[in-house]
Amino acid sequence: MSTPTPDRIRTTVTEYLRRIEASSAAGIADLYTDTATVEDPVGSDVRKGREEILPLYAALESSRNKTELLTLKIAGNEAAFHFRVTSEVAGTEYVFEPIDVMTFDDDGRITSMRAFWSAPDASDS
Amino acid sequence: MSTPTPDRIRTTVTEYLRRIEASSAAGIADLYTDTATVEDPVGSDVRKGREEILPLYAALESSRNKTELLTLKIAGNEAAFHFRVTSEVAGTEYVFEPIDVMTFDDDGRITSMRAFWSAPDASDS
Repeated sequence: MSTPTPDRIRTTVTEYLRRIEASSAAGIADLYTDTATVEDPVGSDVRKGREEILPLYAALESSRNKTELLTLKIAGNEAAFHFRVTSEVAGTEYVFEPIDVMTFDDDGRITSMRAFWSAPDASDS
Repeated sequence: MSTPTPDRIRTTVTEYLRRIEASSAAGIADLYTDTATVEDPVGSDVRKGREEILPLYAALESSRNKTELLTLKIAGNEAAFHFRVTSEVAGTEYVFEPIDVMTFDDDGRITSMRAFWSAPDASDS
């Protein structure tokens, strides 16, 4: 199996954050392969495929979102990254700072995502 | 299967960093279960069991090490954390800032560790 280049992985991660800012659930879902899995948060049921993944991002469409990539580590065909999403909903700002772990196919599409966060983390800084 | 409490996981992660500072390879290996696996960095061969894991930490014994926990996210029986190790070897300081992903048994012992870093990351700040 070949491996996506670090640049390709970096591009997908950057695009993932950009599409969160664009509040585009469909655009985010497009970054995943058809059989991709998502475990968000880690320990919860695993979602598989576009129909199960898309609803996870639907809430973004009713908020204004800013993102910031805090740390990105790429190794093999995987990445772990810490990022901040600041969402404004009805005048209130929420800050969310998970660490996501993703695997990628050769084209840099996401084959799996696992999100590390817990309820208290959702508002830490 | 029950799940270790977040406090128990946090204690193990804190102890992991403390034992890196103490330059104690054996002490670190004690935090792992007998059948634990380590993939460091992600994408490399997986080490299994104390005999294979211990050598990974042997280099710490010839350096002076400081650690800092930058971010810790706990979810289910797993943790992802970003930390800094500053090592002094023969008067030169090296900074290493991986993101580690660990799984834990009910007692908070480490059942697996996967380290996300790449060569350029070893000296980033």
